Amino acid sequence: MSVIYPRVALIGLGLIASSMAHAMRAQGLAAEIIGHARSAETRAVARELFCDRVCETAAEAVQGADLVVLAVPIGAMGAIAAEIAPHLKPGAVVTDVGSVKGAVVEAVAPHIPPGVHFIPGHPMAGTEYSGPRSGFATLFQNRWWLLTPGAETDAAELARLRSLLEGIGAKVDTMDVAHHDLVVAVVSHAPHLIAYTMVGVADHMRRVSQSEIVQYSATGFRDFTRIAASDPTMWRDVFLTNKDAVLDILGRFTEELFVLQRAIRMGDGDHLHAYFTRTRAIRRGIIEAGQDTAAPDFGRGAEPPRGG
Amino acid sequence: MSVIYPRVALIGLGLIASSMAHAMRAQGLAAEIIGHARSAETRAVARELFCDRVCETAAEAVQGADLVVLAVPIGAMGAIAAEIAPHLKPGAVVTDVGSVKGAVVEAVAPHIPPGVHFIPGHPMAGTEYSGPRSGFATLFQNRWWLLTPGAETDAAELARLRSLLEGIGAKVDTMDVAHHDLVVAVVSHAPHLIAYTMVGVADHMRRVSQSEIVQYSATGFRDFTRIAASDPTMWRDVFLTNKDAVLDILGRFTEELFVLQRAIRMGDGDHLHAYFTRTRAIRRGIIEAGQDTAAPDFGRGAEPPRGG
Repeated sequence: MSVIYPRVALIGLGLIASSMAHAMRAQGLAAEIIGHARSAETRAVARELFCDRVCETAAEAVQGADLVVLAVPIGAMGAIAAEIAPHLKPGAVVTDVGSVKGAVVEAVAPHIPPGVHFIPGHPMAGTEYSGPRSGFATLFQNRWWLLTPGAETDAAELARLRSLLEGIGAKVDTMDVAHHDLVVAVVSHAPHLIAYTMVGVADHMRRVSQSEIVQYSATGFRDFTRIAASDPTMWRDVFLTNKDAVLDILGRFTEELFVLQRAIRMGDGDHLHAYFTRTRAIRRGIIEAGQDTAAPDFGRGAEPPRGG
Repeated sequence: MSVIYPRVALIGLGLIASSMAHAMRAQGLAAEIIGHARSAETRAVARELFCDRVCETAAEAVQGADLVVLAVPIGAMGAIAAEIAPHLKPGAVVTDVGSVKGAVVEAVAPHIPPGVHFIPGHPMAGTEYSGPRSGFATLFQNRWWLLTPGAETDAAELARLRSLLEGIGAKVDTMDVAHHDLVVAVVSHAPHLIAYTMVGVADHMRRVSQSEIVQYSATGFRDFTRIAASDPTMWRDVFLTNKDAVLDILGRFTEELFVLQRAIRMGDGDHLHAYFTRTRAIRRGIIEAGQDTAAPDFGRGAEPPRGG
């Protein structure tokens, strides 16, 4: 492929930014990749592994950049936007990779000068690791990257950003900011909080020792701990900034849990069986949509028969 | 290895029994494997894939067997025990593979004739698939198999059963029946119910379409759907028969969730960050205990950097 943005500036150099850098390099989509992170250690790693140049300030990093990617925790977006605003090149595109879009738009948009295009984005990809060494070029392969452009967004610039993201392997979709935040509350934010909660419950048990929990963490709890091992700062900001949608979903979750809990207490096996049969169908839909492997237990086991 | 039980009878021929058969064959631990399942179709598959002989009745299958493995849903254990009791060979060992031990002991023990050894068991291994085609020889490799012998259990017979289970790859531990049921409520049963609930919530959303949920099921929800795709009959019986422990854990879970929910509502970022940092440590413990892969996202992605 050919260069889409001559100069790209990555502000924040964690899992997402480092993966973008590796992928843009692999595909030749950026002529020059500039990076900035607050930590000197992170900057050193980035210089060694995936940046052409790193800068001590975000203001310096964005100078002359055709594309600026804000890849810092959501709570830091506003301050970064204020800092870089006077240094943005006219005609540049600014995007971000925050998991919540309403709060980011609120924090960033007021700082964007006329003539610069702000197109908020959210890559739905990640692992439970973080930091500049955790990135890899195929992270976005076949994963969704949601963009939430406004009515005023320049169509040509939107198409250009889309072609970059598709170039690094993502499937791109656009949606309304508020709808985005509700969708991710359901498919990502609430499940994460629930996993965190269950891991916390296990940790507090008195009659079951921590070593028992660790040893016997069968399928089930084991998957929860993986989710609950994600970056604490990122997730704190997600919950604080997507508060309304998350609390809405948690309210529904508690209601639903109480109904199942009551069925258990009452011994209503038919209710439980019917419920568990319905949830199975959703899993099939996800496999058919190509969002996950059909290998049993994620292919952790050796051989892959799928049952019959 | 050499033969440990000349004749083994498997009653119920799903994921666990078929995996045991494949593993016992691979290691030469049983001279003859007899099977029984209610369904003629299942029996035909078992005859083709892993049984030396299949019988139309459980009573017939257990005749002359040195080891009888009850691998039917927990709700069916009592009736099967009553049926096979008069046909058990003196000195035979009967074990089971139910995920709940209190209810199984209550249903099965009264039927076991004097001179037959009943040693309840629970293999902590599985995939989201079920049925006679889903088994594979390495399912138990490095997984725990918990046995809950009583004070009266014959030490030599316990050692013999242990050597079979270790022979098919499992790590064997023994514990008290009630403690077992509490431990699995924490590490397996409650997490499963919670995953089922979250998948159900997503399914009921009106403002988010099912196709959106399926498409955008990022890490998080995707892992929940895998858990929630497990066998509905098995799980119905688990919840109905481990009711007290599961309801205890769910009560604690709801309390804990409400505290986090309140922190979100109040904007208490410090509380959330501290909580999420603690749960991360538990994950590390599980990896160090060898219960899961350290590869990011279970190795679904291509390259495995672990972050820094």
